Amino acid sequence: MAYFSTAVSEVTEGVVNLRGYSLADVMRKATYTQGAFLSITGRLPSAAETRLVDGILTSLLDHGYVASTITAARYIASGNPQFIPAVAGGILAAGSNTLSPEHSFHLLDHTAELRGDGTLEEGAARVVEEYVSQRKRLPGFGHPTHKTSDFRADILFDLAAELGLDGESIRQLQAIDRAFRERTGKTNIPINIDGALAAIGRDLGWSPNQTVAFAVLSVLPGLMAHVVEEIETGRPLRYIQDGEYVGEPLAKSVGD
Amino acid sequence: MAYFSTAVSEVTEGVVNLRGYSLADVMRKATYTQGAFLSITGRLPSAAETRLVDGILTSLLDHGYVASTITAARYIASGNPQFIPAVAGGILAAGSNTLSPEHSFHLLDHTAELRGDGTLEEGAARVVEEYVSQRKRLPGFGHPTHKTSDFRADILFDLAAELGLDGESIRQLQAIDRAFRERTGKTNIPINIDGALAAIGRDLGWSPNQTVAFAVLSVLPGLMAHVVEEIETGRPLRYIQDGEYVGEPLAKSVGD
Amino acid sequence: MAYFSTAVSEVTEGVVNLRGYSLADVMRKATYTQGAFLSITGRLPSAAETRLVDGILTSLLDHGYVASTITAARYIASGNPQFIPAVAGGILAAGSNTLSPEHSFHLLDHTAELRGDGTLEEGAARVVEEYVSQRKRLPGFGHPTHKTSDFRADILFDLAAELGLDGESIRQLQAIDRAFRERTGKTNIPINIDGALAAIGRDLGWSPNQTVAFAVLSVLPGLMAHVVEEIETGRPLRYIQDGEYVGEPLAKSVGD
Amino acid sequence: MAYFSTAVSEVTEGVVNLRGYSLADVMRKATYTQGAFLSITGRLPSAAETRLVDGILTSLLDHGYVASTITAARYIASGNPQFIPAVAGGILAAGSNTLSPEHSFHLLDHTAELRGDGTLEEGAARVVEEYVSQRKRLPGFGHPTHKTSDFRADILFDLAAELGLDGESIRQLQAIDRAFRERTGKTNIPINIDGALAAIGRDLGWSPNQTVAFAVLSVLPGLMAHVVEEIETGRPLRYIQDGEYVGEPLAKSVGD
Repeated sequence: MAYFSTAVSEVTEGVVNLRGYSLADVMRKATYTQGAFLSITGRLPSAAETRLVDGILTSLLDHGYVASTITAARYIASGNPQFIPAVAGGILAAGSNTLSPEHSFHLLDHTAELRGDGTLEEGAARVVEEYVSQRKRLPGFGHPTHKTSDFRADILFDLAAELGLDGESIRQLQAIDRAFRERTGKTNIPINIDGALAAIGRDLGWSPNQTVAFAVLSVLPGLMAHVVEEIETGRPLRYIQDGEYVGEPLAKSVGD
Repeated sequence: MAYFSTAVSEVTEGVVNLRGYSLADVMRKATYTQGAFLSITGRLPSAAETRLVDGILTSLLDHGYVASTITAARYIASGNPQFIPAVAGGILAAGSNTLSPEHSFHLLDHTAELRGDGTLEEGAARVVEEYVSQRKRLPGFGHPTHKTSDFRADILFDLAAELGLDGESIRQLQAIDRAFRERTGKTNIPINIDGALAAIGRDLGWSPNQTVAFAVLSVLPGLMAHVVEEIETGRPLRYIQDGEYVGEPLAKSVGD
Repeated sequence: MAYFSTAVSEVTEGVVNLRGYSLADVMRKATYTQGAFLSITGRLPSAAETRLVDGILTSLLDHGYVASTITAARYIASGNPQFIPAVAGGILAAGSNTLSPEHSFHLLDHTAELRGDGTLEEGAARVVEEYVSQRKRLPGFGHPTHKTSDFRADILFDLAAELGLDGESIRQLQAIDRAFRERTGKTNIPINIDGALAAIGRDLGWSPNQTVAFAVLSVLPGLMAHVVEEIETGRPLRYIQDGEYVGEPLAKSVGD
Repeated sequence: MAYFSTAVSEVTEGVVNLRGYSLADVMRKATYTQGAFLSITGRLPSAAETRLVDGILTSLLDHGYVASTITAARYIASGNPQFIPAVAGGILAAGSNTLSPEHSFHLLDHTAELRGDGTLEEGAARVVEEYVSQRKRLPGFGHPTHKTSDFRADILFDLAAELGLDGESIRQLQAIDRAFRERTGKTNIPINIDGALAAIGRDLGWSPNQTVAFAVLSVLPGLMAHVVEEIETGRPLRYIQDGEYVGEPLAKSVGD
């Protein structure tokens, strides 16, 4: 048995076999969205899926300075004005506080357990009761800028409904949203884009990592544009200018 | 004047202005390829450009184990089975030996200087003479696997011609290819995908970094698929097994 | 209140205040080991702690090809022959399968709970019984190369004992080792370097992240030496040569 | 011949051969500074070299918020509160604008050419004349915070002199400093720490990459301390708050 083994692709002279398809055929007939779907999930998408995934892949195209990924990438490019390291470093800022639909996957899995044979509304009521009574934040809800609704989530849900791709995860998340508003009276903690991506990805059969994959692809063009801009017209050696020191005064001596 | 300044995007509550377009509008009407083109270049592509860029963005979708980026990413995931660090680390392997169309940009710029008012053939003859006589490798030519031709370059040039987008850079690079074959008699050093991307990107008005941006987007879905596979079914703690030690024997002592 | 706040350091013209000490003073009087200890933990080490930390910081200086971090870094440098990206990428391979003393911290914390008011031996017996009966691997035990004992762990424990720094975490881990050998009869799953680092770090009052910090500093010089070697004398574009394709045959067509 | 080949280290059961020394021996007798020197340069340092390298390795222990590396790392940790990705990402900000002694290596190499058989002063006068007349910045000179002198460079040069390790590169760089002050009358562009590291590294026989290696080791403890602080007490999802949008107004429509 070989040391490495893969079901993703095989390369021989003049041919790349990508999940059973010839890369030459993919290049001639498929869009990037279709090809990326094939690479990541192992099959080509339907026409409806292609349209929905185009919506997903444009939903995070840019979020300006209001994104840790872009901010981090610009500071890296300011110290090291090279394209590749800044792009890679920006991706590293995607984690549990941003671009993290995996937490909403867990919420939906947990709701399914609590719901059992009950209705979507019953599942929603139970999970909301649990989170609110334990004062835990619902993952996939709330956004620092988009307070009454996250338009990106709304558009994706509309698209999914128009295309007949609004599965149970989407409907469950929307029921949780309604239950949360009723239980708390709060209207400024809407479903955010991470929550929407998790629900849609789960309905499409994606794993959390596969969903993160599409989220990262969506973020990258804007991130890359900011990196190019920083390299071409930014400032060398940017640093934090409004920092405050709250540590010990300069009063110690080595060897004392 | 603000410390940071950008012409890429602006975010306010409920609105993302991306290069003058509403992100909501982009999500509803554009494909990822169109949106990425807008983010990176500042304008929407024509229908012909969209098709050509779909070809570009699928050309590197996968190259299996025969890619340093994928190999590096799988070793990272083998030690640290997390999606984000492995993807970022894989991108770091893109550099002067691979995914580096910038070198072919320089070749084309230099050819334009040598050519002056001459024909494409005269420019090609002069630059080939210079490289061959100095025994320098032509950047954007040759591939370890695809020896007689790189089908990805061929398909992109065919697409550009069909779409009326085969500009002077493409024709110049093809003239260099012919001149090289005539001058050397060698038929196993064809235009490779990096050379093709540089010529097409240059004709589309892209900078080298913008061209690298599209190349990285193309590489990522396959890279991501390999990372997911390594995390789910790979081996923990892979290492180099056929390495050889050629250093000093174990015969020294600290403090001698 | 400032947006950023730190207790680590303050920089003004001609002065760097590092945790209450002048950097100029540190440069003149301290070794790197002392300075790194000060930066990471907030205080200078005693003479005994300095010697023990020198042992820690040399314990992982190199582990050749038998390390995912070094392998990953060399593949990155093979594609992108630059020092900084390869070093950063190599660090990314440190995670739950290697350089991860945090798991042994959890083992020690859990043992303390199980032990309650009992002896170290009673705590050890209970945690070993739990892990063995549930067929879980003990984190911090076993090594693919160093099968009967991990000499690095042994030396650090000897050093700690000589220096009077063998605290309860070390003794607890050694008791777990004895209990495991008795319970299972297995002698080829010794305490490894990650387990030793966790026990020593816990005794010194370090957090898991602080312990990982020292482990990463220890790994880096060897990693850097391998990167320099790969850049100067390695092969461009290395890739996996003994991979095997187990996916679908090339039989599908886009548009079918 | 094996696919990989190394002169750095060899690992067998119970033994790590590091550059001809047993790692066990190194752990028992050497400091980190000596071990890192051995790994990176292939030999153990003398006592004088050890002291000088301790000075080098503490010179960049921290530079607070006034460092792109630390700023980038904190933004990464703010989005993705994990230790390893933030440390790796911070390193990526080291490049041509910071932590880049390689440029001063080139200055010293070029000065040696211009100098020929002349004195250090003649070499200095020629290179300063060239740079000043072409209005080029001297690499390794000037600092945004430390304007009249960079105390870190001064201390390292004092240390080198005390230890008898002030070789020709140091004396040449100091002659360039004097010639620059005379030629321009400017006193606020002193030799900075990058310039000092290059001169000392060149005198010690290090390559530019080896010199960068020591600089990165010096930066890491402070970087790590800032990352730990950001993870434990920082703010999630930090972003640029004083950014300004200077791009196109929101007036375009997809499909126009």
